[in-house]
Amino acid sequence: MTAIITLTTDFGVGSPYVAALKAVILGINPQVTIVDLSHAIPPQDIETGAWTLAETTPWFPPGTIHVAVVDPGVGTKRQIIYAQIGEQRYVCPNNGLLARLARGKPPSTIIVVERPEFWLPTVSRTFHGRDIMAPVAARLSLGLDSAELGRPCESFIVPDWPEVEVLPGKLSGTVRTIDSFGNLITDIEGAALAEAPTDERLRVECDEHETIGLFKTYGDQPEMTLMALVGSSGFLELAIVGSSAAEMLGIRRGTRVTVTWE
Amino acid sequence: MTAIITLTTDFGVGSPYVAALKAVILGINPQVTIVDLSHAIPPQDIETGAWTLAETTPWFPPGTIHVAVVDPGVGTKRQIIYAQIGEQRYVCPNNGLLARLARGKPPSTIIVVERPEFWLPTVSRTFHGRDIMAPVAARLSLGLDSAELGRPCESFIVPDWPEVEVLPGKLSGTVRTIDSFGNLITDIEGAALAEAPTDERLRVECDEHETIGLFKTYGDQPEMTLMALVGSSGFLELAIVGSSAAEMLGIRRGTRVTVTWE
Amino acid sequence: MTAIITLTTDFGVGSPYVAALKAVILGINPQVTIVDLSHAIPPQDIETGAWTLAETTPWFPPGTIHVAVVDPGVGTKRQIIYAQIGEQRYVCPNNGLLARLARGKPPSTIIVVERPEFWLPTVSRTFHGRDIMAPVAARLSLGLDSAELGRPCESFIVPDWPEVEVLPGKLSGTVRTIDSFGNLITDIEGAALAEAPTDERLRVECDEHETIGLFKTYGDQPEMTLMALVGSSGFLELAIVGSSAAEMLGIRRGTRVTVTWE
Repeated sequence: MTAIITLTTDFGVGSPYVAALKAVILGINPQVTIVDLSHAIPPQDIETGAWTLAETTPWFPPGTIHVAVVDPGVGTKRQIIYAQIGEQRYVCPNNGLLARLARGKPPSTIIVVERPEFWLPTVSRTFHGRDIMAPVAARLSLGLDSAELGRPCESFIVPDWPEVEVLPGKLSGTVRTIDSFGNLITDIEGAALAEAPTDERLRVECDEHETIGLFKTYGDQPEMTLMALVGSSGFLELAIVGSSAAEMLGIRRGTRVTVTWE
Repeated sequence: MTAIITLTTDFGVGSPYVAALKAVILGINPQVTIVDLSHAIPPQDIETGAWTLAETTPWFPPGTIHVAVVDPGVGTKRQIIYAQIGEQRYVCPNNGLLARLARGKPPSTIIVVERPEFWLPTVSRTFHGRDIMAPVAARLSLGLDSAELGRPCESFIVPDWPEVEVLPGKLSGTVRTIDSFGNLITDIEGAALAEAPTDERLRVECDEHETIGLFKTYGDQPEMTLMALVGSSGFLELAIVGSSAAEMLGIRRGTRVTVTWE
Repeated sequence: MTAIITLTTDFGVGSPYVAALKAVILGINPQVTIVDLSHAIPPQDIETGAWTLAETTPWFPPGTIHVAVVDPGVGTKRQIIYAQIGEQRYVCPNNGLLARLARGKPPSTIIVVERPEFWLPTVSRTFHGRDIMAPVAARLSLGLDSAELGRPCESFIVPDWPEVEVLPGKLSGTVRTIDSFGNLITDIEGAALAEAPTDERLRVECDEHETIGLFKTYGDQPEMTLMALVGSSGFLELAIVGSSAAEMLGIRRGTRVTVTWE
């Protein structure tokens, strides 16, 4: 079996810090397959990191090890944890990065990574991704039992992020990410719209813009039309066909989105 | 033999959508080597995708499978195809992505990807790269016979893109891409200049700028000089030595380039 | 043993030129593990390339082969060299890319890459990374003896880059890179500060800004505070806690940094 380790960081695409993580991992397990999940998490933006992990990691084969380094608290007393959620495994700071994943499915194991014999011999104060998380992930990929890493974690961090408001005939959420096409992806799950109509009785508002109805795919509306649909990751999104909704409407992450229906 | 799958998309560098493709592929064939060809194709820009595939994929070992996801028609009736061109194999929408490759060498096989038993069990309406193309490519990499994928394609799409104008003593083309150095790479093939002189009798014009003669490499002219040469992929390019021609001259993709000689 | 080849270029993240390097390498050694070290070296910026190689390559397992293509002199008489420095191996132009590494530890071997039987059969004038360096690295990864590549190099290039000025109680250097967090990373080694106090007797100045004392990690100061610390690669850096020092202070690469103490 080939082990897989994925990397999610806020180092920026092209950062040589990413290569340092890979160097340490390959030094311990030269056979492992390393996959870049994303290095474009905005600096220290734990919430975007948490969404990215929640949407992408479940697609990986069972047993994949996901290392996530969005770590504003590096070098302070914040913990590093190992967690198993469903069939995926995670190594990251205990700062909320796993909170979105854990909403759907509580972790079956959470361990505090505290036994230094599995780390690099010298640990810096500012790069625990390289010095602790990478070597721990590499050793797990070689078969190390996670119970060896430390004691069970007793205070798994779940930040107090804004929730989608659910009322009869009304949902209120936010634009939580903008993809490379300029589509506005919200935190409103498609499942929450299961009872809603998809025709002209449904209205989606975002900033001063609005659109009527819910479609299946971009090609269902003419070019340059603002439209709403449930996208490939199961969340409501707003798109302008053949163009960038973010640019044309001047909308940014965090903008309020409201869905109402009769 | 190690199978290779390359990925070309317009998802943007750093997009987690790319990782979803890799997750699906590795779930089916954990041994495959995945190479990012480019994820910086401008959104829905099939023509740039076609150029990128044409220039880069022929360098790969025979039998490499290239997945290209520039797919403005996702979820509509546009087809997904498998094609073999020379010794390379391709899985992509039937929308022109293979048209540049097919100019030089017609596909020996083109199959419509239509048998869902090789796809993910659930197919979204907006991400066929993940749900159809990635699993099909992974199965091909394990030895699946392409004839199993569907019936032969009868309407291979070749868009009506502008062609280089060829007259005696004159060629007219466009800047079709700008590389990271700011070099202006045109659609004029070096071969079309085989009969042209390379000395002061040859003139290259682009916007209001012009340069005389054709050189072999950047170091053949002094710093800050605009020069023309046939670049490493066999096309005419304009460069400013030690600087960015695109920035200094304010030139963009699509600008007209004319070569004249006596 | 799995061989590893890393790639460092100024091609830009997302450039298909990078994929061409990988295509050539995998065509010769399909088993090799390829790691992107960085493709975000500013165009033709040999000095940044040299720093990046010096900081990141020593983390790789012994025997790793590092290909570095920052090559403004491509196609001119500049040499391509193979070098061994410590336990790492390098293939790159002889233009200073290895000068930072060689400061700490002189190369044990330097060979001029000059025997074309190890290159691609056809060599362009403008892309020796693909046509010479990639195939040479791939053949080395298969066990080719580096002595076969050519004669020993007799003129290893070490550019005349500015040095940190060291005086009693004073160090003067420059901001040589800015990371994705906006931290200003200088060329002043932490070791040079071993004798300096870390409390209020130490003053760090950069442009018209100054900060007092030397800290251990970002979390040691409150949010929005400018602070100095020795970062994870062993160099002095300036950071604004929870924000971007580069953006907030408007500081760029090359800005002078002075440390004084009593």
